Amino acid sequence: MTENRGLEEYRAELDEIDKVLEQYFVRRMQVVANIGAYKRLHGIPTLDAGREAQVLEKHTRGIEPQFAPYMEDYFRAMMAISRKYQDDQRASGR
Amino acid sequence: MTENRGLEEYRAELDEIDKVLEQYFVRRMQVVANIGAYKRLHGIPTLDAGREAQVLEKHTRGIEPQFAPYMEDYFRAMMAISRKYQDDQRASGR
Repeated sequence: MTENRGLEEYRAELDEIDKVLEQYFVRRMQVVANIGAYKRLHGIPTLDAGREAQVLEKHTRGIEPQFAPYMEDYFRAMMAISRKYQDDQRASGR
Repeated sequence: MTENRGLEEYRAELDEIDKVLEQYFVRRMQVVANIGAYKRLHGIPTLDAGREAQVLEKHTRGIEPQFAPYMEDYFRAMMAISRKYQDDQRASGR
């Protein structure tokens, strides 16, 4: 295992970061659930393309340029998951 | 705007959560860059399917069951982005 000690140390760092990401992703989904309920109550569609574009712009502006395309993919994926969750809630009548 | 005050408040909550997610995603990518460099140096392929399966299992175990499939999608997306970043680094010879 000695030869992989570097890799194991990096993975331990990732594990610590991923704990925080997991925790904040759950928080995000709890807020997304509230937004979904609000939208259903008020007859507002799940997708708000303008809002999504703003979120992407905000989170790719001012970061290290090498990370910008991946940050965009990351927020796109999160918003797609959030929309799917809201649509699933809608379909199940919650 | 009064009728959308609820939505605006939820979005302000999301914005606070997303600031943390952005920050930790950058940290994650910095560690991923180190892992990518290590793997190139040691001739290790980018994909480690066993490690990815462990990460998915770890982060879907013990969370609210309603969030588990979305958490799985979330970590799958992050790992796909991380692999793409490592492959892009490899292709550009960094």
